[in-house]
Amino acid sequence: MLRYQRLLKRLQDLDLDGLIVTHLPNLNYLFNFSGTSGLACYICGEATLLVDSRYLEQAQASAVNCEVRLTSSSALADLRELLEGSQSLQNRSRIAVEAKHLSYQTFLEMDSWGLGIDWVPSSDLVEELRMIKSESEVASMRRAFEIAQTGYGCFLDQVKPGYSEVQLAGLLEFELRKAGGEGVSFETIVASGPRSSLPHGVASSRVLQEKEILLCDFGVRHGGYCSDLTRVYIPEKTSKPDIYNVVREAWQTALGTIRPGVPASEIDAAARQVIAKHGYGDYFGHSTGHGLGLEVHELPAISSRGSSHLEPGMVFTVEPGIYLPGRHGIRIEDVVVVTEQGYSLLSDPEK
Amino acid sequence: MLRYQRLLKRLQDLDLDGLIVTHLPNLNYLFNFSGTSGLACYICGEATLLVDSRYLEQAQASAVNCEVRLTSSSALADLRELLEGSQSLQNRSRIAVEAKHLSYQTFLEMDSWGLGIDWVPSSDLVEELRMIKSESEVASMRRAFEIAQTGYGCFLDQVKPGYSEVQLAGLLEFELRKAGGEGVSFETIVASGPRSSLPHGVASSRVLQEKEILLCDFGVRHGGYCSDLTRVYIPEKTSKPDIYNVVREAWQTALGTIRPGVPASEIDAAARQVIAKHGYGDYFGHSTGHGLGLEVHELPAISSRGSSHLEPGMVFTVEPGIYLPGRHGIRIEDVVVVTEQGYSLLSDPEK
Repeated sequence: MLRYQRLLKRLQDLDLDGLIVTHLPNLNYLFNFSGTSGLACYICGEATLLVDSRYLEQAQASAVNCEVRLTSSSALADLRELLEGSQSLQNRSRIAVEAKHLSYQTFLEMDSWGLGIDWVPSSDLVEELRMIKSESEVASMRRAFEIAQTGYGCFLDQVKPGYSEVQLAGLLEFELRKAGGEGVSFETIVASGPRSSLPHGVASSRVLQEKEILLCDFGVRHGGYCSDLTRVYIPEKTSKPDIYNVVREAWQTALGTIRPGVPASEIDAAARQVIAKHGYGDYFGHSTGHGLGLEVHELPAISSRGSSHLEPGMVFTVEPGIYLPGRHGIRIEDVVVVTEQGYSLLSDPEK
Repeated sequence: MLRYQRLLKRLQDLDLDGLIVTHLPNLNYLFNFSGTSGLACYICGEATLLVDSRYLEQAQASAVNCEVRLTSSSALADLRELLEGSQSLQNRSRIAVEAKHLSYQTFLEMDSWGLGIDWVPSSDLVEELRMIKSESEVASMRRAFEIAQTGYGCFLDQVKPGYSEVQLAGLLEFELRKAGGEGVSFETIVASGPRSSLPHGVASSRVLQEKEILLCDFGVRHGGYCSDLTRVYIPEKTSKPDIYNVVREAWQTALGTIRPGVPASEIDAAARQVIAKHGYGDYFGHSTGHGLGLEVHELPAISSRGSSHLEPGMVFTVEPGIYLPGRHGIRIEDVVVVTEQGYSLLSDPEK
């Protein structure tokens, strides 16, 4: 079923007369619109996309399943006019808003229009559709991983002590772009030596020393879709930290649980049990994974509270880690798509 | 007057008993906290900063003017507990929220607590304080511009036809990092030849051709503060587009109006008049400038609707442009700080 049909069915099931879409990745998903500003409105099955002059040409050329309109002074004022002029709206029409992605200020303004609309706060209406990827979405993501891994390979050939983490991050991002990435999908993490124990340490001015390990967490976009990988570079003459094999075992065990029907929380539990068994339970503070797609963090959550049951087409990271403060940290992160039989890796663990 | 004293005075003037701070740049400004997640609460002059385990060490070491607390499961649940336990709160206490930076969903949750608090939607309470920069803030920004200009110089030495815009953006960002930038302050814009007519064209796969101009809009962070510059590279054997001198005149004229007391809209009008006089009025579609600091777009707005009057310490861009679709575009962007006498440039127009 097409995306907009799935959405319309969802709205119908929830007895909603419409939806205001303000979250940009959702505009991209529903209408193939990738501008950095815009707003869309579904009323009784008809969608209108409001864009400013910067994006009009692009939207007219590539947007689907909607009527494109140029905003005048503000998209919000135009939305009001659109709603006021709509023949389909009735008193107490139920129009959903994306409550996570609408500011309280914007809501107050919309509510002040006095249009007699029942604004219904909703969450994840479109995000839940996005959770199941189509074949073409998976193909874009595979390419985003190929590019990331090619770029990382070229980067590795140039890594040497004496560079700062910030410089190494710059070098890695340059190689990612040269390999064909449209841009990075999040701020590249490069953490050297003891700084690898910071689970989300952004690159600092610390200089890489001889024999030190280097943890890199990075990704690029292709066709709008993100890759997200963590690799730990261990110089030849440096012995592998003991925790490496523990993390590897946790990663492998977590992968082994992936198949349709399994609760997401079970994957998290599988990784966590291995790490706890080896006595490092207190040093794995984040969840085992997260969905990935047009955004670098999306549904499903692969955590103890992850409530989704796996379905074919879900794409997510599997990234257990152990972080020993002041010493070092290891994280192994690869990405899978759930298949009818189990899973398929989008990244190549050997690269 | 210190930042938190200025804020407390502002709250007092507005008859507010407190403020919930959710906008990250505001947390950075008020408490010297630069994490990517956190929340703060002022009640009757006392501030508490809630951070998660990733940022606890950093916050304890460097946060000022607040008590730092570790969040348990969620910052919002902890905020509720804090408010419930507060001795200073009374029925109908007036607590402001940052309405632009609070999601409607979060507001609904806070409102459901039934604490008898009057939540007051506010906008720009802290942003208005941030508009006037201190000497040390201006010094950080000067350094952010030096780094950006050094990096751009190294980039220029390597620009040549055959590179794609995406690759050139990667090269520029690498040089910006090597020059000492903490990271880029926004997605680098590199637009070649006819694509320079897109006012906000992100880098594409288009390859730079011989004799083509290259428009670059870029910036780095230093000490958390942003630089933001636009430069147009014109190859030696390429003649300067006619519009270059018009934009230059608009830029110079706009600069000439800058001094304390002048309405921001007057700077915009000055640039616009020059461009209109030469017949290009329809080809300058954006505003003349914007404030710059911890964020790349902040107050004051230098536009026809800009309502601020200039004061010493304000920092903003002056960036008129002319964009001829299908042909080329020119934008000249430099940044000034308003002084008692007039203004001082933070960027060097010759570099």
